[in-house]
Amino acid sequence: MQFDIERIVHTALMEDIGLGDVTSMAIVSRDTTMRAELVAKEDFIVAGLDVAAAVFHHLDSHVRFEKIFLDGQKVKRGDVLAWLKGSALMLLQGERVALNLLQRMSGIATLTARFVAAVDGTGANIVDTRKTAPGLRALDKYAVRAGGGRNHRIGLFDGVLIKENHIAAAGGIAAAIAGAREQVPHTLKIEVETRDLDEVQQAIDAGADVIMLDNMTNDEMVRAVELIDGRALTEASGGVNLERVREIAETGVNLISVGALTHSVVAVDISMLFK
Amino acid sequence: MQFDIERIVHTALMEDIGLGDVTSMAIVSRDTTMRAELVAKEDFIVAGLDVAAAVFHHLDSHVRFEKIFLDGQKVKRGDVLAWLKGSALMLLQGERVALNLLQRMSGIATLTARFVAAVDGTGANIVDTRKTAPGLRALDKYAVRAGGGRNHRIGLFDGVLIKENHIAAAGGIAAAIAGAREQVPHTLKIEVETRDLDEVQQAIDAGADVIMLDNMTNDEMVRAVELIDGRALTEASGGVNLERVREIAETGVNLISVGALTHSVVAVDISMLFK
Amino acid sequence: MQFDIERIVHTALMEDIGLGDVTSMAIVSRDTTMRAELVAKEDFIVAGLDVAAAVFHHLDSHVRFEKIFLDGQKVKRGDVLAWLKGSALMLLQGERVALNLLQRMSGIATLTARFVAAVDGTGANIVDTRKTAPGLRALDKYAVRAGGGRNHRIGLFDGVLIKENHIAAAGGIAAAIAGAREQVPHTLKIEVETRDLDEVQQAIDAGADVIMLDNMTNDEMVRAVELIDGRALTEASGGVNLERVREIAETGVNLISVGALTHSVVAVDISMLFK
Amino acid sequence: MQFDIERIVHTALMEDIGLGDVTSMAIVSRDTTMRAELVAKEDFIVAGLDVAAAVFHHLDSHVRFEKIFLDGQKVKRGDVLAWLKGSALMLLQGERVALNLLQRMSGIATLTARFVAAVDGTGANIVDTRKTAPGLRALDKYAVRAGGGRNHRIGLFDGVLIKENHIAAAGGIAAAIAGAREQVPHTLKIEVETRDLDEVQQAIDAGADVIMLDNMTNDEMVRAVELIDGRALTEASGGVNLERVREIAETGVNLISVGALTHSVVAVDISMLFK
Amino acid sequence: MQFDIERIVHTALMEDIGLGDVTSMAIVSRDTTMRAELVAKEDFIVAGLDVAAAVFHHLDSHVRFEKIFLDGQKVKRGDVLAWLKGSALMLLQGERVALNLLQRMSGIATLTARFVAAVDGTGANIVDTRKTAPGLRALDKYAVRAGGGRNHRIGLFDGVLIKENHIAAAGGIAAAIAGAREQVPHTLKIEVETRDLDEVQQAIDAGADVIMLDNMTNDEMVRAVELIDGRALTEASGGVNLERVREIAETGVNLISVGALTHSVVAVDISMLFK
Amino acid sequence: MQFDIERIVHTALMEDIGLGDVTSMAIVSRDTTMRAELVAKEDFIVAGLDVAAAVFHHLDSHVRFEKIFLDGQKVKRGDVLAWLKGSALMLLQGERVALNLLQRMSGIATLTARFVAAVDGTGANIVDTRKTAPGLRALDKYAVRAGGGRNHRIGLFDGVLIKENHIAAAGGIAAAIAGAREQVPHTLKIEVETRDLDEVQQAIDAGADVIMLDNMTNDEMVRAVELIDGRALTEASGGVNLERVREIAETGVNLISVGALTHSVVAVDISMLFK
Repeated sequence: MQFDIERIVHTALMEDIGLGDVTSMAIVSRDTTMRAELVAKEDFIVAGLDVAAAVFHHLDSHVRFEKIFLDGQKVKRGDVLAWLKGSALMLLQGERVALNLLQRMSGIATLTARFVAAVDGTGANIVDTRKTAPGLRALDKYAVRAGGGRNHRIGLFDGVLIKENHIAAAGGIAAAIAGAREQVPHTLKIEVETRDLDEVQQAIDAGADVIMLDNMTNDEMVRAVELIDGRALTEASGGVNLERVREIAETGVNLISVGALTHSVVAVDISMLFK
Repeated sequence: MQFDIERIVHTALMEDIGLGDVTSMAIVSRDTTMRAELVAKEDFIVAGLDVAAAVFHHLDSHVRFEKIFLDGQKVKRGDVLAWLKGSALMLLQGERVALNLLQRMSGIATLTARFVAAVDGTGANIVDTRKTAPGLRALDKYAVRAGGGRNHRIGLFDGVLIKENHIAAAGGIAAAIAGAREQVPHTLKIEVETRDLDEVQQAIDAGADVIMLDNMTNDEMVRAVELIDGRALTEASGGVNLERVREIAETGVNLISVGALTHSVVAVDISMLFK
Repeated sequence: MQFDIERIVHTALMEDIGLGDVTSMAIVSRDTTMRAELVAKEDFIVAGLDVAAAVFHHLDSHVRFEKIFLDGQKVKRGDVLAWLKGSALMLLQGERVALNLLQRMSGIATLTARFVAAVDGTGANIVDTRKTAPGLRALDKYAVRAGGGRNHRIGLFDGVLIKENHIAAAGGIAAAIAGAREQVPHTLKIEVETRDLDEVQQAIDAGADVIMLDNMTNDEMVRAVELIDGRALTEASGGVNLERVREIAETGVNLISVGALTHSVVAVDISMLFK
Repeated sequence: MQFDIERIVHTALMEDIGLGDVTSMAIVSRDTTMRAELVAKEDFIVAGLDVAAAVFHHLDSHVRFEKIFLDGQKVKRGDVLAWLKGSALMLLQGERVALNLLQRMSGIATLTARFVAAVDGTGANIVDTRKTAPGLRALDKYAVRAGGGRNHRIGLFDGVLIKENHIAAAGGIAAAIAGAREQVPHTLKIEVETRDLDEVQQAIDAGADVIMLDNMTNDEMVRAVELIDGRALTEASGGVNLERVREIAETGVNLISVGALTHSVVAVDISMLFK
Repeated sequence: MQFDIERIVHTALMEDIGLGDVTSMAIVSRDTTMRAELVAKEDFIVAGLDVAAAVFHHLDSHVRFEKIFLDGQKVKRGDVLAWLKGSALMLLQGERVALNLLQRMSGIATLTARFVAAVDGTGANIVDTRKTAPGLRALDKYAVRAGGGRNHRIGLFDGVLIKENHIAAAGGIAAAIAGAREQVPHTLKIEVETRDLDEVQQAIDAGADVIMLDNMTNDEMVRAVELIDGRALTEASGGVNLERVREIAETGVNLISVGALTHSVVAVDISMLFK
Repeated sequence: MQFDIERIVHTALMEDIGLGDVTSMAIVSRDTTMRAELVAKEDFIVAGLDVAAAVFHHLDSHVRFEKIFLDGQKVKRGDVLAWLKGSALMLLQGERVALNLLQRMSGIATLTARFVAAVDGTGANIVDTRKTAPGLRALDKYAVRAGGGRNHRIGLFDGVLIKENHIAAAGGIAAAIAGAREQVPHTLKIEVETRDLDEVQQAIDAGADVIMLDNMTNDEMVRAVELIDGRALTEASGGVNLERVREIAETGVNLISVGALTHSVVAVDISMLFK
């Protein structure tokens, strides 16, 4: 993940700073040193502290950045997440990018933790999707893990997910699964999307490793889980929200995928205060 | 903006596809052609159709992409936003990235339009901030414009915004403004952040071009606007939400900046349906 | 794979051409058009014709490149693989890079095809490894497929392979498998390396999806296959060569991985003849 | 060469690791430190130890890497080439890339040394060609030097080599040499490819600095060397192998170019053993 | 600016060194350490010492580089600007690039200082243009500041300059200014190019923030300044040279832009002497 | 050279345009098409027309660009060099970058042509140096050729030039030449810098291919040329200007290198006029 962090941090700083922070360069002396704190303005699960550190270190390896919390921990309004010290010019230039990353990642971790808590004790795992902010997938998926969720495939390259269009192209679920089994590295499981119990039965017969239950009612899912009977992992997908997630988990599915974890992120509120 | 689109689209496709869509490559023939439609699953303001087209064209310049709506238009649930036709493999590989971009950008435009509508007739403009998704600023800011908002400075390089720390470093508002005036290109206005009427007065006296009223009450803003009396642009900032924005606009400020436009985006729901 | 081809072709051309082919630029007129043929100088399985085309198209989109064979086909000494026509300067500048790629890829396909033929009828699949030329993995692995082999995981990111060091770090096979199951995306199978039947038994008990039989004798492999009895895929690894591969396949293993396919490539002989 | 090493190492690590070594990240603690040794599994000439070190340092500047041999030295089966110590996660992630580079480079050095030994005492030099692995030319050519060979031109930009097509385009050897002399930087020698003694004579008359004797018999080469009589360097090219190279050297040519040094590399066997 | 320095230094070193300094690598031992001095061969204003340092540090972070002068200072023939110590190979490889940058930047600073001196006491500022060496704008503009000049907009993105074509497209000065005011970030001033007093009047009426007086005679400029009477900044542009610049400044304009500062740079003479 | 042009054009456009030409985007309709002419405002030798075309084509492949002159031709004040037609937005965005490149390159060609004319009939060639604008070497050297000059080595990688420091490191001219001969590709000539006739004699004895006469008087050069008597090429270097160049040429040297051709470029005056 370190190469992704480097790329993301570099791109974000270039985008924000360009040829320079004209305000600070005009006003702040190059020799001024400052100390600052990252302070939580509400309660949340923190994620991204190492990424925030990487922002300042990309600008200036001499900035000191000390974490007080670790990613995945719960913080309360008023908690100091980390403090940093270094050239005032560098602190001012990195502030916005560091906060943008930290606030988004903590927002993801916090929402994920809510979903995870909602299914507590059911045995179901909350997983993410590929509905991430373009360019930020590595961080979005890391933040899901920090919040207690698990990752679905990272991209199209590291997981097989046979959808409606693939089934149509192959001429049926059995043919699609056989085709994939024939071609993809043996290190990958074969997951197939199903819309009703008939398709679930076909997926079982074709030896799917994972069966996605797409937009099914809770009742349908209960029957699908019974039908599958441990021969494949089961994943509930579609229309999952905090209100409904517990009921879904109680159908006995193994995995519940939630697009909102990463496609509709509410940034948490964090300030960088100079001392 | 075209270079940013190229960079963003390239990065997002690399991130999602890597060495290839193993599922589609195993199942879908290289010669299959498909037609698909981008369909709105709710009402919203659309933004990003050209970017979605760029995703498919980056994969394959032969894909045909026809817009039916233009960015900034209001669409209703069920509307077809665009249709496209080309290699099934390319359509399947580009689908998720195109939707991720289009759903985020339309989410921004839609929220912006709500803020703009809320201040209708007051003369105030809604402006964005630098609280954007790292790497996506060009698109985030474009989407704000599509929703009827206006852009604040793009980054630290194209606008002067003197904040608390700068004032402290310079030894006062007057000194900070003078320092900036001395150094920055004459093409840039000088904006200064103020927290009370005393600071507003100092900013006026120092010849600020734009005065930010930071976290002030409506009453304070009314008095600030009177005090300034057209000698500088005024910008309300801090704690702005849809409930409160109309009142703020009625204080007479010229600009209202809203971080949530881009830091807490709710993706709109759009599907890509294959026909 | 198209992004990899672009990167590889661009890098190779930069490396070979730099500021220009000083010889051709001094002697050959910019307006001269030439026709050339790629001719096999021995019998082999061809792979890389589209990549060779990409070399010339990267230099000049106007070069015409017509394939006469398809990747994966057997060609005989004297066969014309493709012909091309275009600016003499571009043909001369692309020649070496195109041949270097085509000769290496065809060498891989040809060797792979020999291994595949050697196990014909046994049900075993020949798979590659990560022992590829740095930077060329996408092409090396594609060439293996062109030769009738199958791909193992592409890199460290899309497959789980628990080796000796992981087992030591985790404190045993069971703990290592459980740890991986807990953390990695559910789309990935868990493969574990074993060195004797005792470890094979542990891997079965821990529910491994794939069991690698590392440097075992044929007898050991026969017994391992019996022990596993279809509960996991089996992969023979270590010391595989053309002499021994048939016996290995007859032990009943599902997969035989061969590092030499890509780490010790003998380039086939191909000439580009100008007409 | 340092920029090439950086590029090659970065590309190779990205290719192999992508978003991360899912196995090691799941199983190995971030705090574990390990020691490992690079051990020769056969006799060979080593090349690439600094490049192997660069792989680990690119991942983590804190890894300690101590060479025990130097590039160009002969090592025996069982020799420890280098030892390294650092984060277990980093050692595991860098292992395959480091070995892939080191095994290929040592394979090139070893084969080169065999050719060099074969011509010992004749005064002829063994030189490489442009038939290198795309993207790896700097390392391939370095390894040739480590094996005691010399480099021909690096690419099309730093040497003039007038071939059949150039002669045809110019209308003869004399015209081609004159054209090149007129245009290319005076820092470059003019080499021309000849196929028989008549062409050799033309090359001499036109003042070629280097004359390549392409696919000539030993007898022809003897006569060519006599004819040239020190007025130009001579290079034997085409169909050179270990069996024939001594005879070729004894014809009196100055240089013998061998494509196989880099186009058909047999990787030497090296293991990385964790202690 | 640090990212620009990194890019420029990297590009320049790649361009000059490529695969290596063949001369030094053949002759100079890798272990030799050298000391060198950068010595002024004429009088000038120095600029670019940190950039020169960055060249050597990019090659080798162990090179010691000690500045004796600071950018913007006047140096005399014979002055030692800085001394450096490190690997002879690195010093030799960085020499030309460091000098090329330092000589150009000091040339710009020196010419700028002459223009600044010429208008001393008039209140006019000397500003640069976008007529910079492609790829080097950040350094060219920095050198102007080192010479006492000020920067006009950096590029098309951070300043509004309405020219003849824009006015034609908009249908007049008033419409063009109104259009820009409507669209561009409020952080940017609106500058408009005028060719006569009538256009100046239109610009005033439309509320331009800055009025460029393009290719006007001194008399016209005097009248324009009177007409504008402090309601906008004024910029003289076109045909400015050292002979005429004082007269122009005495017309009362605020800014005088000089393309020659960066488009026709005479490098100052600096040597790197090894001790 | 095409890869260099792509890199340079891309970098220059990014640098100038960034997120966009805010002025034109606000005022000029996306649908407006314009026609423009590149017009000479003085007499000069043109160079760079294809590069100027590449600027516009990089922005928009639909822009039509028709050259009326060819690089290397003499143009007179008022001549139209090329005309172009396309989206007004693209023409306005590319204008400055295209002119910056064309004006610099034509400035180099024009100055070179003056030096070439000054030595007409003497048999001496004017050559450039490595004193080019960082990042622009390929274009600077191309422009020298367009002006009738010849190129010295492109960088440190494609030519051997043994200077004072190398001689000191090697322990004398003979040792330095022998060391280089031993190591560098045989495709490169060996050039050595000499400061007096004694060193010239040493260079001859050591078999130098090219002898640089560094900062010698005309008399010394006459004697050096006699001494060398055709056994090596001769290059005059140091303190060459238009006044002195003819005398130098008449000493009988083969090459005269002129740093000012590229380190002190006076841009020619060219306008882009919209019709």
